Parts: sequence; structure tokens; C-alpha cells
Amino acid sequence: MTLCPDLVSERSPCPIATTLDVVGDKWSLVIVRDMINGKKRFGEFLTSPEGIPTNILTNRLKRMEDAGLVEKSAYQDRPPRFDYLLTPRGRALLPVLQEICRWGNGQAPGTWVPPDHFMTAQP
Amino acid sequence: MTLCPDLVSERSPCPIATTLDVVGDKWSLVIVRDMINGKKRFGEFLTSPEGIPTNILTNRLKRMEDAGLVEKSAYQDRPPRFDYLLTPRGRALLPVLQEICRWGNGQAPGTWVPPDHFMTAQP
Repeated sequence: MTLCPDLVSERSPCPIATTLDVVGDKWSLVIVRDMINGKKRFGEFLTSPEGIPTNILTNRLKRMEDAGLVEKSAYQDRPPRFDYLLTPRGRALLPVLQEICRWGNGQAPGTWVPPDHFMTAQP
Repeated sequence: MTLCPDLVSERSPCPIATTLDVVGDKWSLVIVRDMINGKKRFGEFLTSPEGIPTNILTNRLKRMEDAGLVEKSAYQDRPPRFDYLLTPRGRALLPVLQEICRWGNGQAPGTWVPPDHFMTAQP
């Protein structure tokens, strides 16, 4: 168990800018989505339909780990292999994902409608 | 009044990936925040504390206009000058911003707490 580091805003004390300093990109919240849906291994994230490049996946997992959203846990020693799990801080992003889904479904017809258990889940 | 273009997902039909194709970066939702708070001119966005570079502001305004989130309206002809206003599609991002603020305030102590009228506003 690691201590949750302070999140320090890089640009301003605005909570929106501060949040986007950590997850303001095209991939981080897609990885959080996969983790909420049960994926936890590097190779599992690679199989998602968006086709995240391995170097970007490595970078985003590290950034989310540094920000206390994700925790690495070794499941194998030689060679070292890790599970990547959301911390409570990372899982607390669920309401953000749910609102993004509502906007996406409302504005982009044809997008997947998430199952009820995803849309009503609590962090 | 322009027609609202279809939002087509670039990576997958996931509503999260589709949304992030448009606003998945460090700046777009900061600009949306400013527009919700009444800013509408290019120079006004530049004065926000995050210090957005002019080339990034130009790029993001154009991308949000292309995606039907922002509408340009000329307020002066020579030289041409524009107001940038949220469309209903852009304003519908407000619940996403509100959840981002809740997460930011909860996880990053010291960030600004938005006024009640922002947190309870409806799109």
C-alpha cells in the first residue's frame, strides 16, 4: 500500500485544470474505464478496441501511478509482471466517466450504451 | 446558425473514447469552463490564469467549432473579430465539468471551490 501523493496543480488552483493535468488526454480515462470493467494487466489494456500504443500505455500507467490513481502489484517475479489496480482516488473518477457516457450517448448516436450496472455504480 | 455535425468516433463506438476524441486534452474543457463563465472573445480566454498559448487556443476553438460545440459569431468586420459561444451541445458538457470539479476538490485540497450557482446549474 503506497501513500496517496498530494495532487498539486501545475497550471492554476482550478479543480478542472488540476484534474486535466493528470487525466486530460485521449487515453487515461479509457484505461480507467477498462480497469473499472475488470482489466488489470498490461496485455489486457492492449486488446481494447481503441488500440492504445504500448509506449502511450506505459506512459499513462506511470503518470496515473505517480498521481495516486493506480497501484501496481507484482503477480510474478521472474520476469517481473504487474497487475494495475485503481486506488480509491482512481475509482472516484467513476461519476466523471458516467457523465462523459451520458454526453457521448446523447451527442453521438450509435455509440455504445453502457449497461445499467456501469451507469448506476458508486465509486 | 450552423447545423450540428455528426460526432463520429475515431477510435471505437465507446462514448468515452468518442468524447475524448473531441475534448480529451488539457485545454478544451478549460475553455468550456471560461465560456460557461461568460468569456467569449479570443483575448479574454488568453487572460485566464492557466495561460493558454495562442496557437493552442486557435487549434482548440477550431476543433470545438468543427465538432459543433462552439459557434463563431462576427462582432466586427474590419478587421474580422469573433465571439465564441457554446452551442447547446457544448453547454451539455456542464455536468461533466461539475463532476470533474467534485473530483478535483475532493482529491486536491486547496483547489478553488466553485460557487453554488456553477455546481447546481443545468445545461
